[in-house]
Parts: sequence; C-alpha cells; structure tokens
Amino acid sequence: MYFCLTQLDKEKKTMNNQPQHKEVLRVPEPTLRRLPWYLSNIILLKQKGERYVSSTQISKEINIDASQIAKDLSYVNITGRTRVGYEIDTLITVLENFLGFTNLHKAFLFGVGSLGAALLGDSGLKHFGLEIVAAFDVKPNLVGTTLNGIPIFHSDDFINKMKEYQVNIGVLTVPIGIAQQITDYMIEGGIKAVWNFTPFRIRVPEHIVVQNTSLYAHLAVMFNRLNSNENKQ
Amino acid sequence: MYFCLTQLDKEKKTMNNQPQHKEVLRVPEPTLRRLPWYLSNIILLKQKGERYVSSTQISKEINIDASQIAKDLSYVNITGRTRVGYEIDTLITVLENFLGFTNLHKAFLFGVGSLGAALLGDSGLKHFGLEIVAAFDVKPNLVGTTLNGIPIFHSDDFINKMKEYQVNIGVLTVPIGIAQQITDYMIEGGIKAVWNFTPFRIRVPEHIVVQNTSLYAHLAVMFNRLNSNENKQ
Repeated sequence: MYFCLTQLDKEKKTMNNQPQHKEVLRVPEPTLRRLPWYLSNIILLKQKGERYVSSTQISKEINIDASQIAKDLSYVNITGRTRVGYEIDTLITVLENFLGFTNLHKAFLFGVGSLGAALLGDSGLKHFGLEIVAAFDVKPNLVGTTLNGIPIFHSDDFINKMKEYQVNIGVLTVPIGIAQQITDYMIEGGIKAVWNFTPFRIRVPEHIVVQNTSLYAHLAVMFNRLNSNENKQ
Repeated sequence: MYFCLTQLDKEKKTMNNQPQHKEVLRVPEPTLRRLPWYLSNIILLKQKGERYVSSTQISKEINIDASQIAKDLSYVNITGRTRVGYEIDTLITVLENFLGFTNLHKAFLFGVGSLGAALLGDSGLKHFGLEIVAAFDVKPNLVGTTLNGIPIFHSDDFINKMKEYQVNIGVLTVPIGIAQQITDYMIEGGIKAVWNFTPFRIRVPEHIVVQNTSLYAHLAVMFNRLNSNENKQ
C-alpha cells in the first residue's frame, strides 16, 4: 500500500517516482526551507547504512512534527510504503531534483568586492545547482582577470554576454548606492531572478524573483539574541 | 515636540540619544530584519545631502508602511521631531549601535572548506560587527596556515584557544556529517551563539543562540519561484 502521493499527482494515482507534471507548483517558502533539512538528515541516515526512512524517523532526528514532515514531503513526487517508509536512495534523488540542486542554473555575479569575490570562490554552490559563469565589475584592476576560473568582465559588456551565455539568475553583491540601478540594468538585460546579498531592499517588476540573503540582517538577529541572553544571566 | 521614544524609555522620558538601558530587549526577528533596510536607505539619503528623514520618507523609498517603520524604530533608542523627522547622522549611529554593527564580536570559524574559506576571505563582515579571529580544521595542509591573515588551528586546539581569545560566536561551515558533533564541541568549549551555514538542523540547549543561514535553502526557494514563473508564461 502506498501513501503520500504528491498533491499534483493525487488524481493521476501514478506509481512512478519520476516527475509527471510539467507545471511547477509554487511551494510554500517554509516547506522549501525545511526540505533541505530533511535531505541532509536522510543523506546521513544513508551513510549509516539505512535503506528506508519514515517521517517518524526524520521527526525524531530533527525535532519537527512527523505530520509536518509528511505534509512537506507531499509536495514532492515520492511514494512511501506503509511500515517501511520511503526508499532512501529514491528519496534523496527525488528531493535533490525537486529542490533544483541537480540541474545547474547559470548565473552572473555583479560586484566583485569582498563578498562577491568570496562567493566566486565558493565552489560548493555548484553542488546545489548554482554555477556562476561570469562576473561583472568596473574596477580596471579586476576587469579582464579571472577568479577561481570565473572571468570578470566590464559591466558595460553585460548585455553582450547575455547573448553568449544561457543565464537567467543575477547575484547582487554591489555597494548599496548602486544596488537598485544594477538591478534595473540586470532586468533590462533579461535576468529573471535576483539573489540579493546587499542590505538594500531592491524593487523589481512582479514577474521577477528576488531572493534576499542579508548576512547583515542575520548578524543583527544573532547579536540581539546573544545580548538578550547575556542579560538574562 | 518629540515622538517615538523607545519602548524601554517611555517611562523615563529621556531626551538623551545615548542608550540608557542595560537590559537588552528581545526585539522581534522581522523588525531586526527590516532595520538594516532602513539603515541602508538612510545612508543613501545622507549621501544625497539630506539632514533629516521621516518614516514617511523611508516608506516611499522602500515600499513598507510608514506606521510599520515607526513601530520598528520605536524599539530603537531615538527621538524624532514632529514635521522634521529624525536627524540622519544620529539615526545612522543609533541604528548601527542597536544592530550591533559598531561593536566587534569575535568569532571562531569551524571547517575551512569552500564556504568556510569564502567567509574567511570576506572582510566585509567586520563592517557589520563580526570579526573571525581564528579558524579550525583537521586537514594537515590547512592547519598552521593563515587565510586572509586569519590563523587556522587544529580542531583539537579549540578549547585552549578559547582561553586565549575572547570569543562567544562560532561559525559552522563543516560537512553535515559532523555538524552536530562540532556544535556540541563548540558549546562544551563555551560558545554562546552558532551561526549555522550548513543545511543541517543542529540541536542546542535552550540558552544557546542559533542563527541559520542556509544558502542552499535560499537557492531552493529561488529555483522554485523561477520555475513556477517560467511555467506561467
């Protein structure tokens, strides 16, 4: 007996683990944030030699309600078997596919400052589906060089390079004073999603995706919690 | 006439802009995430020559309700003047202090892989209050070297180095298989806050602060939104 059919496939009652749907469901953000937790736990269980895993098992490991986990996994195209659970190998493959980690998404990076250079140096992003294929800056000492094998072009060359590379993601690591201007420039050139690392709140048209990753906002939260804890003691 | 006294100082009715309270308020996370947006906008307004700024003005710039901004700023120890608003220089100083960006918090980094090395290379964190003073790893080719001037020690030396440096923050960039083990080790050594960059959900005692910054979860959200938008067209 099978359970946990994906919400899209419930009508089809497919027994197949391969994605059947062309339409991509807009999955709730909290679910998308939890799925990588499950994935990393399942990878560990596999390393320990497990072949099957249930929501209850994951729940025990990471302290999230089993019903929540089952609900989150219901977005993913995977079927489990009662009493046995999900087959680990299949679940890993399906989750990695679902999260977009197996499909390399090409990206351009804008602004090779300290953080920009750090991201160019982080080859680990490739394992999670992001390949930064080129970077843009205006500094004469950077333009024409490479960093970790990634070429740095002059910002003026962006529109031309869009024709050359298949890119729809832009990583924004410029100073806040030009964050909006560079965002507008990216979108004009055909970028469809902006990964914004600046502490600046950029404005984009409705059809453009923005993912904010403000390390500084995270630091602010951490400092506040730390100080508040210290005062309690 | 003054408005927007901080919630803590409402009873004191102080006219002073310097923090009066020793107790640190546990500020809601959404507020702490929005404050850096206001800060970066105010810095830009200052660069444009403005001397005063109101919530309404910030609101127009970043498309957040003025009443929300005023509410968020009410946590901060700053007084504005009716019709004139907040003095920009003071507001920048007070916000930077409040967010913890002016006070250097020393941190150790655990795991000098691709992302760990990238963070060691990002000198920009210092401008936001975080100084990584040393890193730990076990790889023989790393131990004893420095990266961006930051020494890399053997993980076994951590407890000793805790005595030498004044550190209470640990940055976690190890492989998921040892994320929990290294977290436990950090806390045993006296670390009070863990900045977790791994996709692993670590467990900590109640008095320990965890700030999760999973770049991979953010990528998953961005990929899903991008695919879902592409399917709409």
